[in-house]
Amino acid sequence: MKVSVFIATSLDGYIARQNHALDWLTGANDQQSTDQDYGYFDFIKTVDVLVMGRSTFDVVVKFDGWKPPEDTRVVVLTHRDLDIPQEFAECINVMSGSPQTMIAQLEAAGAQHLYIDGGNVIQQFLKEDLVDDLIISTAPVLIGSGIPLFAELNADIKLKVNSSKVFDSGLTQTHYTTDRRTHQTSG
Amino acid sequence: MKVSVFIATSLDGYIARQNHALDWLTGANDQQSTDQDYGYFDFIKTVDVLVMGRSTFDVVVKFDGWKPPEDTRVVVLTHRDLDIPQEFAECINVMSGSPQTMIAQLEAAGAQHLYIDGGNVIQQFLKEDLVDDLIISTAPVLIGSGIPLFAELNADIKLKVNSSKVFDSGLTQTHYTTDRRTHQTSG
Repeated sequence: MKVSVFIATSLDGYIARQNHALDWLTGANDQQSTDQDYGYFDFIKTVDVLVMGRSTFDVVVKFDGWKPPEDTRVVVLTHRDLDIPQEFAECINVMSGSPQTMIAQLEAAGAQHLYIDGGNVIQQFLKEDLVDDLIISTAPVLIGSGIPLFAELNADIKLKVNSSKVFDSGLTQTHYTTDRRTHQTSG
Repeated sequence: MKVSVFIATSLDGYIARQNHALDWLTGANDQQSTDQDYGYFDFIKTVDVLVMGRSTFDVVVKFDGWKPPEDTRVVVLTHRDLDIPQEFAECINVMSGSPQTMIAQLEAAGAQHLYIDGGNVIQQFLKEDLVDDLIISTAPVLIGSGIPLFAELNADIKLKVNSSKVFDSGLTQTHYTTDRRTHQTSG
């Protein structure tokens, strides 16, 4: 199974302000055409399961008009009770446990491409070296503090640059891949 | 006077390991040709004064064969006594005081392009919104901890992407500019 990250950060590595605000990201997009999705649509089409942390879910579910991506199961990682809105009951599941356990369960259920979202979840998966692709869009702004994308690791993670481009908005999007698969097949 | 940053970081935003090691950066450059300087030579030719913090100086001065860049004055920012190696006595000065004071003094002495180096110095100048150009080379590696490039700010700093390119080594170099000059001339 492939595990991907697709996320935007400030140049100083924050995915949101401490209060979860994304105004700095919208601000960075002043010049963008309204239909610019930075490749998200093409990406999400290939995803079977979107895994997000509890705090990310609690934020996005309040966005006006938010709904789970079409044809994508959503798994919310949480140890606490979660009230799933009735309209999403069929496509949203709750799971808990380690990244390894979750991958095993989802793989057994036929999933082939996991999209992991939210700082905590991404950091957990990276720490266990379970990420294959990182598509990172860097907004041209320094915000000084907030929720960081990266955290401590058990070991360095070497990456390869697959592609990199600058959008008119000033967002620089770089697609990194890890050596995880190589390790797995040779290990 | 123009103030520039020209620095390499890991993807998770560290300019060195906690012990100042740069092995992760050399590692990222496995594929590079030995004469690849990532535009440093062209950059340094335009610099009048290289300003570095005390801890950066203490590290680089120990590098085998290190010497100040040709035709560039070096200013070491420190409040403590500093023994300057005899051979560099003519091109290295010591200064202390705020970024603003230093800029005023160097400007009065005719300097037109300052290159600031080292995490502390860069963070001090950014906090006072005194940086015009950031040329950041991101190595394709996550190292998990170390000396961070960025720190807290007094306010967001919006940037423009001047150019961005990927080197064969996997280093992504993006040239950002701030709006500082616009602010100054209009303010």
